[in-house]
Amino acid sequence: FSSLQESMLSSASSFKNYRGILNWCVVMLVLSNARLVLENLLRYGILVDPIQVVSLFLKDPYSWPAACLIIVSNVFILAALYTERKLAMGYFSERFGLLVHIINLSVVLCFPVVIVLMVPSVTPVGGAIALGVYTILFLKLYSYKDVNRWCRERMQVKARSPSPPSTEGAVHVSYPGNLSLKDLFYFVFAPTLCYELNFPRSPSVRMSFLLRRLFEMLILTQLLVGLTQQWMVPIIQSSMKPLQEMDYSRMMERLLRLAVPNHLLWLIFFYSFFHSSMNFMAELLRFGDREFYRDWWNSETVTYFWQNWNIPVHKWCIRHFYKPLLRKGASKLVSQSAVFFASAFFHEYLVSVPLRMFRLWAFMGMMAQIPLAWFVGRFLRGNYGNAAVWLSLIIGQPIAVLMYVHDYYVIHHLEETADPGAL
Amino acid sequence: FSSLQESMLSSASSFKNYRGILNWCVVMLVLSNARLVLENLLRYGILVDPIQVVSLFLKDPYSWPAACLIIVSNVFILAALYTERKLAMGYFSERFGLLVHIINLSVVLCFPVVIVLMVPSVTPVGGAIALGVYTILFLKLYSYKDVNRWCRERMQVKARSPSPPSTEGAVHVSYPGNLSLKDLFYFVFAPTLCYELNFPRSPSVRMSFLLRRLFEMLILTQLLVGLTQQWMVPIIQSSMKPLQEMDYSRMMERLLRLAVPNHLLWLIFFYSFFHSSMNFMAELLRFGDREFYRDWWNSETVTYFWQNWNIPVHKWCIRHFYKPLLRKGASKLVSQSAVFFASAFFHEYLVSVPLRMFRLWAFMGMMAQIPLAWFVGRFLRGNYGNAAVWLSLIIGQPIAVLMYVHDYYVIHHLEETADPGAL
Repeated sequence: FSSLQESMLSSASSFKNYRGILNWCVVMLVLSNARLVLENLLRYGILVDPIQVVSLFLKDPYSWPAACLIIVSNVFILAALYTERKLAMGYFSERFGLLVHIINLSVVLCFPVVIVLMVPSVTPVGGAIALGVYTILFLKLYSYKDVNRWCRERMQVKARSPSPPSTEGAVHVSYPGNLSLKDLFYFVFAPTLCYELNFPRSPSVRMSFLLRRLFEMLILTQLLVGLTQQWMVPIIQSSMKPLQEMDYSRMMERLLRLAVPNHLLWLIFFYSFFHSSMNFMAELLRFGDREFYRDWWNSETVTYFWQNWNIPVHKWCIRHFYKPLLRKGASKLVSQSAVFFASAFFHEYLVSVPLRMFRLWAFMGMMAQIPLAWFVGRFLRGNYGNAAVWLSLIIGQPIAVLMYVHDYYVIHHLEETADPGAL
Repeated sequence: FSSLQESMLSSASSFKNYRGILNWCVVMLVLSNARLVLENLLRYGILVDPIQVVSLFLKDPYSWPAACLIIVSNVFILAALYTERKLAMGYFSERFGLLVHIINLSVVLCFPVVIVLMVPSVTPVGGAIALGVYTILFLKLYSYKDVNRWCRERMQVKARSPSPPSTEGAVHVSYPGNLSLKDLFYFVFAPTLCYELNFPRSPSVRMSFLLRRLFEMLILTQLLVGLTQQWMVPIIQSSMKPLQEMDYSRMMERLLRLAVPNHLLWLIFFYSFFHSSMNFMAELLRFGDREFYRDWWNSETVTYFWQNWNIPVHKWCIRHFYKPLLRKGASKLVSQSAVFFASAFFHEYLVSVPLRMFRLWAFMGMMAQIPLAWFVGRFLRGNYGNAAVWLSLIIGQPIAVLMYVHDYYVIHHLEETADPGAL
């Protein structure tokens, strides 16, 4: 009936099947979040307000500064095309063309900054979107300029076609046949930052795929806005007092409380932007290369995460920044750090200018990735490394969010109140 | 440079590696519980109070009714041994012996009930422990009576030894050589409910194993008490108002809030009782069969859970209740339901008597397992079944806990207050 045997949980037992624990984790996460939702609804009621969302984009309904800014960006696209045509025809020398491009690209970066800082009716959200569009445009036009220059260099040494022939049967474009308005605007709208003369193209537009991505975009955008209003805003508001009073244990509690909705919003944003929106644009334009992200969720080092979560930017950095630096003789470490530095600059640019507040939190957050990457790569392996990457994502972001919100609150709300000594 | 490919999250992609998601679950669970701990400490301060624990066991420090009750239980052990000896020697007929055993076993079940209900100085915790000891004793003596009867039956048909020969080299005991005080007390203290003449024995006492289990028992008992005081009690106290006012959304929120600590306590209890304590006793007694539980955490049906989480009781039910019922001609379904019914009876017995309150919540909770088992077995498979089992564990227990605590509170606290109309 009974026999000599060890308990399953004893180390002497060879039993190793704990698959049910994964289901336990999922059930516990769903339940604890269900409780949070219920607690939130009981405490605050329903805070979701679609009208309030409009006010984030518009202060004055008769003035649309951010939208105007985006429309004006066409000027810089045309300027880049004009310069390339002159270069192709030999009317501009290489040096003069480069100068025009540099001026054009500098204006692309600086012009929206000036507008956002000067025009008071630009809201932070409107400003951030406009600056995002200009940043993307800057990266695209930089790539456009580089690729066309490479084409001219190859033509001079009478080499073979600048890019390898793409899909079979497609019409093959070669320099300078690519310098058309249609080709440039296809590149501007395509979900990539790296210009190619012949992009891989998918055979047809799959209507059901297109509609599913559109549906996801609409639903997830609503969800993002709703969760922010219902979940993020109350926590941030209740964090202001502990932050001002430097009550560390309460600050910690609010930070952990903020981490969950912030992380959830980031995950939804990731899916809706990198999967739904980019696939939607790609399907619409029959753009073939859908590798917008790789499996960053399995990353065991911080470096792997940064190399795989945002493939368009990663590819651009490798092609137009990292490799040219290496070719100019910079070491690997210097080039990698330079990439992080540039990334940190653009993070800061996209946050500070719309908030009209220069605090360097985003910049320092990005630069902190270098020692973090060193630490994780040096001391943590496998699942521990993966957990460390998740932890830095889940905890790192809300720290930066709280910093900016705190400073924004101090500037915009406290200076209106009676006691300026509280600053 | 770029090539025609699908995004990883597209259904057309063949990518399936989401191992990192498991780490994400773990990180999220650790973080949300860290927040809960911090929030709890900030709100309530430290509530752990070792002195208060003593008062759970003792009302009057000069009267130890529960401890006396446990010491008295030796009388019933001796009565069972005496009866078996008389039966073995033929002084008692089988019918008379059975009658004496039935009387003895009935007294084992009823005597502590009478004492707990009559003596006011028995606390609920002391009463529950005493009743638990008597219940275990009842099951053990029932098994002792059955096995000895089987031995006599086999001797009459001149069959071979009643139990298969155990470990090689050990001294082999055969009926009636087993009817000694030493043999019976070994069985009483051994971590099993099923009597055998020759238990499998481990070769030696491993000191480090013994000390590790003892250390676990001490630490986990402290943890159980501490977590109950710090985490369970405040939630239960704050649940009383919504429960009285029948405020359903708040009741639901408190229930979900209670589910997490309750489940954690149950898991700690499971480990400390079924792994640490039972292995400690087994190691001390060189008891070989350490199968006190199987992999219930992987159970995909409710039945599998009940068959594998508590192996001593499961084995007893199969050997002394389910199989005898089948032999007497009962159908499988009837026998299974009878097992659940008996289990429900003992659950109710162990809760109602110490609380001096007959509400049938525990009984109904156990009986509800039958339709639940049917539903899960019929409609859910694999991981969904496993998740359903976890969910019923995590949610089912705190419902019963809240029911009893509410009724106990209404009886003991509200009747002391001014307004009896609130009842």
